[in-house]
Amino acid sequence: MDRFERQLQFIIEVDKLKTVLRRTLLTDGSRRENSAEHSWHIALMAPLLAEYACEPVDVGRVMRMLLVHDIVEIDAGDTFAYDANGNADKEARERRAADRLYGLLPEDQARDLREAWQEFEAAESAEARFAHALDRLQPLLLNLHHQGGTWRTHGITREQVLERMRPIETTCPGLWSFVVSSINDVWAKGRVRTLDDLDAMGAPPAETTGTDRT
Amino acid sequence: MDRFERQLQFIIEVDKLKTVLRRTLLTDGSRRENSAEHSWHIALMAPLLAEYACEPVDVGRVMRMLLVHDIVEIDAGDTFAYDANGNADKEARERRAADRLYGLLPEDQARDLREAWQEFEAAESAEARFAHALDRLQPLLLNLHHQGGTWRTHGITREQVLERMRPIETTCPGLWSFVVSSINDVWAKGRVRTLDDLDAMGAPPAETTGTDRT
Repeated sequence: MDRFERQLQFIIEVDKLKTVLRRTLLTDGSRRENSAEHSWHIALMAPLLAEYACEPVDVGRVMRMLLVHDIVEIDAGDTFAYDANGNADKEARERRAADRLYGLLPEDQARDLREAWQEFEAAESAEARFAHALDRLQPLLLNLHHQGGTWRTHGITREQVLERMRPIETTCPGLWSFVVSSINDVWAKGRVRTLDDLDAMGAPPAETTGTDRT
Repeated sequence: MDRFERQLQFIIEVDKLKTVLRRTLLTDGSRRENSAEHSWHIALMAPLLAEYACEPVDVGRVMRMLLVHDIVEIDAGDTFAYDANGNADKEARERRAADRLYGLLPEDQARDLREAWQEFEAAESAEARFAHALDRLQPLLLNLHHQGGTWRTHGITREQVLERMRPIETTCPGLWSFVVSSINDVWAKGRVRTLDDLDAMGAPPAETTGTDRT
């Protein structure tokens, strides 16, 4: 197979990321968000919020990392952040997914994209840590928009949410007081939606391959 | 309103791009593509296909341009490429949309993003012309995957599709023979789907604000 055919095969294959559902609802509440549009949203946020990163970041690198960071979910599914069982074998599942998916590409590009994904996962570079902060902040904003969104449906505590948001504190300390006060506000007002509320608004039920990270 | 609040307001507002539908179907045929996930797809294609651009391009600039290029559709809708009436006032509608949407941001960022969008629209820089080629190629690939997809449902001729794809010829001449032979192949085999086929597979009907560019 020639180089362009391999590139096309990968481009067509990753279309499937548009069908991997997260738990987060869109702002209009009409449906659950998928991982492709989530990736678009956080990549767009990168240049807007880079000024809050406590270390200088190469925004182009951050964007590229965010565009690929969820591709393994096509095979491995999205693993619920608070699911201990799901997270136990997450690494092995995602490694197999990366082998197959990036393996569709010509070798040099497979290596480049896989390295971007591994850099994100390792969360060691300034760019990767800022990318993680955005990956936490975006669903937080959607959940805040829905007065707590789907947190309570999964019995998540305020402390678990705060712990999940820690990368924002370490990478973008200037945003931390907003994060804490917003979360406190939701819990203080008891506004976290229940499963019944979500049923009433016609939100689709949870699926095994469609779990959310926040 | 402080700077961060303006940024948040914009980030929440652009979530609506996930509900702007195009005519193109996903590869699994389950539904129409939206403009947010389309933007993710072409931004991801940029680094993979930059080697076919006939002039060197700054891939980071291309990605940033592609991430914002459809945001005006939140207010202006997506205008069908072959719709002469819709295209007559497209510019004015999109300019008003840009005023409102980018106007949500702090001034410096409003200017940056608007300039990226204007650069795309002007299609003069090497980056903008390459971005246009990707914006044509991606729905072409989806339509080819569906043996012609929604072209015939709108009575589009082979010549109109070829004309629409011209930016690929001028910007990525190495890909043009693939484009021409793929389109010829679809027409030669008479495989372009009809409206009845699409109804049978449960594709949603066309909507006034959900028209496609290809």
